Amino acid sequence: MQLGLSVSDSDVSSFTPLVVLELADDTKAEAITWLLNRIRDKQQNGGAELLVNQLLFPAQDDQKPNPNVFVVGSTLQRLLNGAEDVGLFKEFQDGTMRGFTYANRESFNDFNGDGEGFLSDAECQYIIKHELDTLRAKNEEHVPGYPKLKLYPGKSVVRRLQSKGVLNQYFPLHNKEDLKRLSFSWYKKFKLSFQPLDDIRHYFGEGLALYFGFLEYFTFALVPMALIGIPYYLFDWEDYDKYVLFAVFNLVWSTVFLEVWKRCSATLAYGWGTLSRKKAFEEPRAGFHGALGFNPVTGREEPVYPSSKRQLRIYLVSVPFVLLCLYLSFYVMMVYFDMEFWAINIYNEDPSIATSILLFVPSIIYAVVIEIMNLLYRFAAEFLTDWENHRLESSFQNHLVLKVLVFNFVNCFASLFYIAFVMQDMVLLRQSLATLLITSQILNQVMEAFLPYWLQRRRNKKVHKRMRRLMGDKELPLLGQVKLETEMNTYLGTFDDYLEQFLLFGYVSLFSCVYPLAAVLVVLNNITEVYSDAFKMCHVFKRPFSEPATNIGVWQLAFETMSIIAVVTNCALIGLSPQVKAYFPESDTQLILIVVAIEHVLLAFKFILAFVIPDVPKHIQVNLAKLEFDSLEAFKKRVILRIAFISNRFL
Amino acid sequence: MQLGLSVSDSDVSSFTPLVVLELADDTKAEAITWLLNRIRDKQQNGGAELLVNQLLFPAQDDQKPNPNVFVVGSTLQRLLNGAEDVGLFKEFQDGTMRGFTYANRESFNDFNGDGEGFLSDAECQYIIKHELDTLRAKNEEHVPGYPKLKLYPGKSVVRRLQSKGVLNQYFPLHNKEDLKRLSFSWYKKFKLSFQPLDDIRHYFGEGLALYFGFLEYFTFALVPMALIGIPYYLFDWEDYDKYVLFAVFNLVWSTVFLEVWKRCSATLAYGWGTLSRKKAFEEPRAGFHGALGFNPVTGREEPVYPSSKRQLRIYLVSVPFVLLCLYLSFYVMMVYFDMEFWAINIYNEDPSIATSILLFVPSIIYAVVIEIMNLLYRFAAEFLTDWENHRLESSFQNHLVLKVLVFNFVNCFASLFYIAFVMQDMVLLRQSLATLLITSQILNQVMEAFLPYWLQRRRNKKVHKRMRRLMGDKELPLLGQVKLETEMNTYLGTFDDYLEQFLLFGYVSLFSCVYPLAAVLVVLNNITEVYSDAFKMCHVFKRPFSEPATNIGVWQLAFETMSIIAVVTNCALIGLSPQVKAYFPESDTQLILIVVAIEHVLLAFKFILAFVIPDVPKHIQVNLAKLEFDSLEAFKKRVILRIAFISNRFL
Repeated sequence: MQLGLSVSDSDVSSFTPLVVLELADDTKAEAITWLLNRIRDKQQNGGAELLVNQLLFPAQDDQKPNPNVFVVGSTLQRLLNGAEDVGLFKEFQDGTMRGFTYANRESFNDFNGDGEGFLSDAECQYIIKHELDTLRAKNEEHVPGYPKLKLYPGKSVVRRLQSKGVLNQYFPLHNKEDLKRLSFSWYKKFKLSFQPLDDIRHYFGEGLALYFGFLEYFTFALVPMALIGIPYYLFDWEDYDKYVLFAVFNLVWSTVFLEVWKRCSATLAYGWGTLSRKKAFEEPRAGFHGALGFNPVTGREEPVYPSSKRQLRIYLVSVPFVLLCLYLSFYVMMVYFDMEFWAINIYNEDPSIATSILLFVPSIIYAVVIEIMNLLYRFAAEFLTDWENHRLESSFQNHLVLKVLVFNFVNCFASLFYIAFVMQDMVLLRQSLATLLITSQILNQVMEAFLPYWLQRRRNKKVHKRMRRLMGDKELPLLGQVKLETEMNTYLGTFDDYLEQFLLFGYVSLFSCVYPLAAVLVVLNNITEVYSDAFKMCHVFKRPFSEPATNIGVWQLAFETMSIIAVVTNCALIGLSPQVKAYFPESDTQLILIVVAIEHVLLAFKFILAFVIPDVPKHIQVNLAKLEFDSLEAFKKRVILRIAFISNRFL
Repeated sequence: MQLGLSVSDSDVSSFTPLVVLELADDTKAEAITWLLNRIRDKQQNGGAELLVNQLLFPAQDDQKPNPNVFVVGSTLQRLLNGAEDVGLFKEFQDGTMRGFTYANRESFNDFNGDGEGFLSDAECQYIIKHELDTLRAKNEEHVPGYPKLKLYPGKSVVRRLQSKGVLNQYFPLHNKEDLKRLSFSWYKKFKLSFQPLDDIRHYFGEGLALYFGFLEYFTFALVPMALIGIPYYLFDWEDYDKYVLFAVFNLVWSTVFLEVWKRCSATLAYGWGTLSRKKAFEEPRAGFHGALGFNPVTGREEPVYPSSKRQLRIYLVSVPFVLLCLYLSFYVMMVYFDMEFWAINIYNEDPSIATSILLFVPSIIYAVVIEIMNLLYRFAAEFLTDWENHRLESSFQNHLVLKVLVFNFVNCFASLFYIAFVMQDMVLLRQSLATLLITSQILNQVMEAFLPYWLQRRRNKKVHKRMRRLMGDKELPLLGQVKLETEMNTYLGTFDDYLEQFLLFGYVSLFSCVYPLAAVLVVLNNITEVYSDAFKMCHVFKRPFSEPATNIGVWQLAFETMSIIAVVTNCALIGLSPQVKAYFPESDTQLILIVVAIEHVLLAFKFILAFVIPDVPKHIQVNLAKLEFDSLEAFKKRVILRIAFISNRFL
């Protein structure tokens, strides 16, 4: 609850600053006054009842600092009420997770005295974000000083200021001491240990902690496959027939993997109190626009955009665009194969070291081109999805994920499928897989960790130097910290991280039977990934607001789809193996029928397995049922008490 | 709310009797007194606060009537409170469905004056059943007069009396006037019209109304298929090759059919207020036994049975038994084929009218044997599932349905699959399908409607005669009605009705492309089915307690599984058709690969379709979201009010 550094800054801020608000530096004074008043006003009057102070940076010789930077904090009492308001779940005295209520605060574990330290930093910042986001316009027709920034009763003030560029950004401050502790236990110890998921969740929230939990789980799940893969690789290097056993293993592994993860994720989410938490009503996203109308659910005024128009945009523009991109991707793939043949021909004509290196060139070029195409497509997909004008952030995300996934899948795997099933060349498949995997991993690590790290280091040094020049020896840590963090890059969410894992999962589950080292490579990649991701969260990006997450959302579905495709692919690979073909020397038909039959049985078995294994472990089910039962009983008791009251009144 | 006849029966009962309780005729007087006291006692004292009266039947010459028959009723006030207690949803003044609360009663549509007529008969009876079922033991250690009938605090009294045979039965009374009206609009009008689903729901509850809704929907959905089937049947009688188009139609139909039904069912359930209703905590079923322990959810004492033991019983006894039965069913099938060949041989040796009739004999015998085996297996399955000792009625039902479904599926369809894919004899397939379908339909109608009707008629006459003999001209309608209904058969739920529809759906969606008349036969069967089912509900069986149902439950899953099997089967049938084979004269392999590829695409398309089509129509989603939003807002308002109160107190 307290930021380590702030205690000494009594001249800068009289409270613990938690969130930074940065308005555009030319914001009109009346708008600022109005906004600050609204933030400070009592809840009964529709305010957010938070504490807010201006930060004044000393002027510099080369540039004028932005005067409109504010820090927001809150009293403890307000935060505890806010915790009830957002429906936070905390550990009750009986060990179950229950919705926090201020009235029952004493019955929650870890609530001591006035509640100091009961809420984590991330929770406090989440509560403040929620209160800021739900600060609604009352009777104002527009933002004071900006007649064009129209408001209507119930419109979220912050969203409007954001969408019109008056509010540049608002973000939570790092807590240097906590961060030091966290980064030490997370990635500075060089001993092999589990990640401190609870601490990560404490500091960054449930969404990110679930990502790191998934990353860890995935890496551990790959270890057996990697262990089996090494001897396969070492002793059967040229024996392409022996992959049947490995394909069967893949089949079972990819199914069990996801089912068990669902249970792990439920266990984590229950322990963090997000599993049974009710979803709040979702506000329209900041970029959503449309004619002013009434929301049928809330009855409040808000922009309305007919979903038929959105459907038209999706089906007449987005879908054709995606299909065109897929066609382009296929075209590039065919060019790659032409290059491949050309390289092989040159090598065959003149086998030397130079030409043998040339053999790998097409694959490397293709891998680079794929990465570039993915990047370009990503921008287009974001633009298109934004243009589709989705009302909800979640629906925007789902459409974006779908677009990006389909393209990435085709882009990364089409060539492998082509080699495996059209060309039926297992040597080339193995070689392509290795090249793709290694190239994309190296590219990823560079793009994701080293580049931002280097940029960030340069910036840090500049800011440090500048601050020292200004203040001399007198240190103003809060000012320095805010200055530094304001200029950090914003973390755009777990999308890219999950996408990378999704593609790695694809390489492993689809084709690792022909290239058993794939699992080993992925394990190695993920170990460095943990460190680089951890570092980037702690030092490269702005601290993100914590996101309460129950599971990995749409990604669970994506991974499950991939595992179904894996069953089909592995069955087909088994059918193609010379080992299996040897059993049916005279008739291909019989072989195909048997493979298809087995594939159907496996798919059926997979669905039954998914159906039979409960998604939530038994003891958590019991706890959830208990919660529901108690609330039902409480409701009944209320009814009976009222009946008693009514009947007594009439006696 | 009032039973037509009861007004004049002031000498028999001073209130509207709704539910009949029949205790064993040798029940000890002290147990009866205790039970009646508990039922009549105030809710504050843990009673049910209901009205209950004894019915005394005049003695008869041939047999002593049971003296322990009681009728239960309730005051209006108690029923309205009970409606809140069970969480009944009613139409609010703004047109949405909301949980009824006594405090807001005036804001509900149809609530006039003191609320007379606000609750339907079936709802009142459901409330009374709920109150009786949740009448719990307090400090009694056993039922008075029965030291062996142990009780413990919290044990449902009615369940205990039921499981030990002291309470023979309890059932809701028919309302003769409503029944007359209902049966007139339901099946006595001979004009083609939709069923009065709302009236059915009003009288029999949501579970049954959904069944009849599904029956109607299914029948209508079959009409296009029947219409296409007739010309196919008339003009392509001997042209077995032309079924490809029909198979494609089947494919699409079986997918769309179920997706649309989900939406219909949600619409119905929303209109009836069951869609958003919270499920109450499920009590253990009457037959559940085990050592006394504590329920981890409620903390109450109740029998506990380790689920590991249950798993052992399931996997070591039930599963092997089911597999054995399946083997037996296969064996019978092979015998049938032997008979079939034998008949064909005889016919070929001596083609005459007698031997051509003989051709149909094996199929008829097989159909009859299948019906008998299904019946026997059903008893065994019920016994086994009971012995597995499931704690919840719903889990009992699911295991029973699963057992019965698997066996029925194999029993009914194995021979058809064998003929289609092993023997590849489409003429025989067509003939077998026709025989199976027609025989089982005739058998069903006889077993389901005519037999019970005939038995019931005989019983009715006897009771009428007996009552007339006893009372002379003086009529005591309530006594007569109770006497009559006590002796009626109990309706055992919609299980058999759904099972029949499931098998019909199987015949149509799997094989109707080779026998296009199947859909026509099923439509005809279902039209008579509506009438016979309606009649049997109104006049053959005791009135069942209404069951609040949101959807058709496990049957939706069963039908969806069947439709997946239908996709696979139809693809295979298409692949087998000479028409398609003609396109691939030289290579079977290519044909198979293409058929398999198409099948996979279709299955993927099916899953995407199921995923994309929302299960609940948009306007209902909006209403549900509204409800949730309002309750969240109300909660927030409460929090803010309390904060205001707290801060005022401290000022």
